[in-house]
Amino acid sequence: MAWTLDLDDLHDLARGAALLGTGGGGDPHVGRLLVAEAIREHGPLTILDPEELDDDVLIIPTAQMGAPTVVAEKLPAGTEGSRALTTLEEHLGRTAFATMPIECGGVNSMIPLQLAAVRGLPVVDADGMGRAFPELQMETFSVYGVSGSPLAIAGEAGEKAVIDTGADNKRMEDFARALTVQLGGVAHIAEYAMSGAEVKRVAVPRTLSLALGVGRAIRTAREANEDPLHRLAQFLGTTPYAHLRHLFTGKVVDVERNTDGAFVRGAARISGSRPGSSAAGELRIGFQNENLRAEADGELLAVVPDLICILEADSAEPITTEGLRYGQRVKVIGISTPAMMRTQEALAVFGPQAFGLHDEFTAVESLGGSIVGED
Amino acid sequence: MAWTLDLDDLHDLARGAALLGTGGGGDPHVGRLLVAEAIREHGPLTILDPEELDDDVLIIPTAQMGAPTVVAEKLPAGTEGSRALTTLEEHLGRTAFATMPIECGGVNSMIPLQLAAVRGLPVVDADGMGRAFPELQMETFSVYGVSGSPLAIAGEAGEKAVIDTGADNKRMEDFARALTVQLGGVAHIAEYAMSGAEVKRVAVPRTLSLALGVGRAIRTAREANEDPLHRLAQFLGTTPYAHLRHLFTGKVVDVERNTDGAFVRGAARISGSRPGSSAAGELRIGFQNENLRAEADGELLAVVPDLICILEADSAEPITTEGLRYGQRVKVIGISTPAMMRTQEALAVFGPQAFGLHDEFTAVESLGGSIVGED
Repeated sequence: MAWTLDLDDLHDLARGAALLGTGGGGDPHVGRLLVAEAIREHGPLTILDPEELDDDVLIIPTAQMGAPTVVAEKLPAGTEGSRALTTLEEHLGRTAFATMPIECGGVNSMIPLQLAAVRGLPVVDADGMGRAFPELQMETFSVYGVSGSPLAIAGEAGEKAVIDTGADNKRMEDFARALTVQLGGVAHIAEYAMSGAEVKRVAVPRTLSLALGVGRAIRTAREANEDPLHRLAQFLGTTPYAHLRHLFTGKVVDVERNTDGAFVRGAARISGSRPGSSAAGELRIGFQNENLRAEADGELLAVVPDLICILEADSAEPITTEGLRYGQRVKVIGISTPAMMRTQEALAVFGPQAFGLHDEFTAVESLGGSIVGED
Repeated sequence: MAWTLDLDDLHDLARGAALLGTGGGGDPHVGRLLVAEAIREHGPLTILDPEELDDDVLIIPTAQMGAPTVVAEKLPAGTEGSRALTTLEEHLGRTAFATMPIECGGVNSMIPLQLAAVRGLPVVDADGMGRAFPELQMETFSVYGVSGSPLAIAGEAGEKAVIDTGADNKRMEDFARALTVQLGGVAHIAEYAMSGAEVKRVAVPRTLSLALGVGRAIRTAREANEDPLHRLAQFLGTTPYAHLRHLFTGKVVDVERNTDGAFVRGAARISGSRPGSSAAGELRIGFQNENLRAEADGELLAVVPDLICILEADSAEPITTEGLRYGQRVKVIGISTPAMMRTQEALAVFGPQAFGLHDEFTAVESLGGSIVGED
């Protein structure tokens, strides 16, 4: 069923999107400001359930691309997203019935909402990553056979381009990344135009609802002085992201970060202990924009595509990679991803080895993290 | 008046285009093979004089872009140029009445001929550089107010993109260059789509005829055992490239070349003497893809946009930057460019300072080179 997203939901949605960003995806609170402004001016947004889409409507996903550290420094003018969409519509000779996020984690949960509000378009409650990922071919859209091309890209000074690399979505990513660097490190894109029937087949469903529910669970627990992880585990149990595991509690002791213009790569070390244990230990989290791998004293506790989230210890507020600082007290959790993100085809595109890791994918619920409430 | 270019003209045209390439522009003989094949299959080409174009016809210039050293190693499949043209036609929603070179020097004298033969299109006898230059904004088209955007770019594996940077043709160059690097260093482009009226206003006229006449003068002089420079000077005297100066005769003693993926930069030193002088001296030629500046023992003899050409001493065969070798015996000549390439607006775009040189532009006929026949 379609539902309405209004101003009051935006803080919860941004908090949930930050958690689903697993450290990356860009700061959703920057995007939130733009969405709030657009809703104030144009009214609340209509969110469509993917199951209610007619098979033959045209859906055009939209997003921002760039390294999170650059994105954080460069507020969009607010017109780039709409321009990317228009450029693709003109190229296709058709107008979009609705837009959709490509990524429900981080700022890209917000970018489609902003342009949808401005353009009076509905937004489909689904996305192509079910979290955040660093590259455009890392989408279930691509995994299940939709072509990302033609892709439209727009910069802040009115620059625009349409890229077509046929079925090769990795090459599309390379081309778009090269232009994003030319555009100063941030660009807006419209890509993976598809039919309603394709959305139902290839998108991760109800991930805007998921982000909203995650943010709401954390907030309401705080207001009730309950442990946010309990409410979060309870909410996630009702979704395809059913398993939450508490991996570690401790203090950030080291963060190593390198930006090469397109990606932020690095690792964080957290000193503390595993839940239910008094033994001192160390958790190491490797990231490429997003957290990819968590290992405690040699034992793998979670690995991509499952979610690895670093939260402030008391408030459970998600901390992004660029927000990590020495001395922060944190809890680290793992969350299982839906079955469609764990197939062989999906793991080939965004599993551990797609990021150069040597691990076989193992579900977080089969590893050594603790069930919340039992720790 | 329209004229016909057939197989027998191609060697002369390629030789002339190599000379007008002033050391760069890519090897026209590679392009010649492709044109010969296309003419054999599809018949001779119709070349249109710019003055006979109707004002409202659509002309779409086409070219190859990339560093000459890469271009020389990577023969085009022969379909990329046509695909770039089709991509731009589809974007514009109009088909081209004719194509035109953007550059009459080097391989880009040939690329439009190949696709014109395949597509059955006529070619306009004009171009946007009046020689060869390394960057896409360095065109009289741009100098006199035509927008290069939208630009279509195509790669050998079917990749294509349309770039639109509005009136900023330097930014268009940057974007296209970034995609060319992604495409392995060579790409085909269609850009500066314009009306027949605009061609008459902004293009350097009759430069295919010029290349053909240059190549023919050198060949017929050889066949008659005359000095090729004499016939060349005689022919050029009948064109807007009226002044030929003999700058130096000697032996190549040093060549320094750096390729950064997009450009070849460097310098050549030639040991010998100036015409009419028995004093030993040294000529230094700096280049960025093309020869930019010639200086003999501290005295400037020619500078961009005037042509600086290195020829084999006996045959007057043009030598490209990548063909320069230690020990070659050479003659170096300078050739004046038409008035429209020497205006303040033109010099701002492709004069000495546009290449980081400190010289004021001075016409080659006002500098110290010798008039051929008087040396």
